[in-house]
Amino acid sequence: MLKPKKHIFVCTSSRPNGQQKGFCHTKAGVDILNNFREEIEERGLGGEVFISNTGCFGLCEQGPIVVVYPENVWYGAVVPDDVEEIMDEHIEGDNVVKRLEL
Amino acid sequence: MLKPKKHIFVCTSSRPNGQQKGFCHTKAGVDILNNFREEIEERGLGGEVFISNTGCFGLCEQGPIVVVYPENVWYGAVVPDDVEEIMDEHIEGDNVVKRLEL
Repeated sequence: MLKPKKHIFVCTSSRPNGQQKGFCHTKAGVDILNNFREEIEERGLGGEVFISNTGCFGLCEQGPIVVVYPENVWYGAVVPDDVEEIMDEHIEGDNVVKRLEL
Repeated sequence: MLKPKKHIFVCTSSRPNGQQKGFCHTKAGVDILNNFREEIEERGLGGEVFISNTGCFGLCEQGPIVVVYPENVWYGAVVPDDVEEIMDEHIEGDNVVKRLEL
């Protein structure tokens, strides 16, 4: 299969039973997810950059959480307006956004 | 932060709006997730092996899908009874389970 060069995971507090409770969901996790989806599409990166929503990572007090693999970089206290910078610097530029890194 | 050595992602078709529809959810995605959680706990690997449920990866016809990072290994048509083998061979043994790899 065509594997992603980068895979962005955004916590949306999506519980496996279909419920949705928790911190990241109430703190713009879904908006962050949607902003990443739009940026990936607008930049034509859909074939190489994947985006997924997830359940809780257990770091609620540091959320909203965004994780990028294969780098294993964890970002905390992300807001929707940070998405463009993460895309520019990290996803396209391969530089970790240090100010958001956990 | 303490980062995972391996991070297992299991599709449970968890949509960011809280709905839960799709293939993997109806095909034992939640049972697979729960089996991984039990195996990680029983083996005392909770500090180094993380497990998360996700939304759809867009590979429904090949599901249920399990992804392991940072290796970027994708498994398809996983059944709950495959979890022990993935834990033994891949998570603890660092050998990809070729028969399930996409």
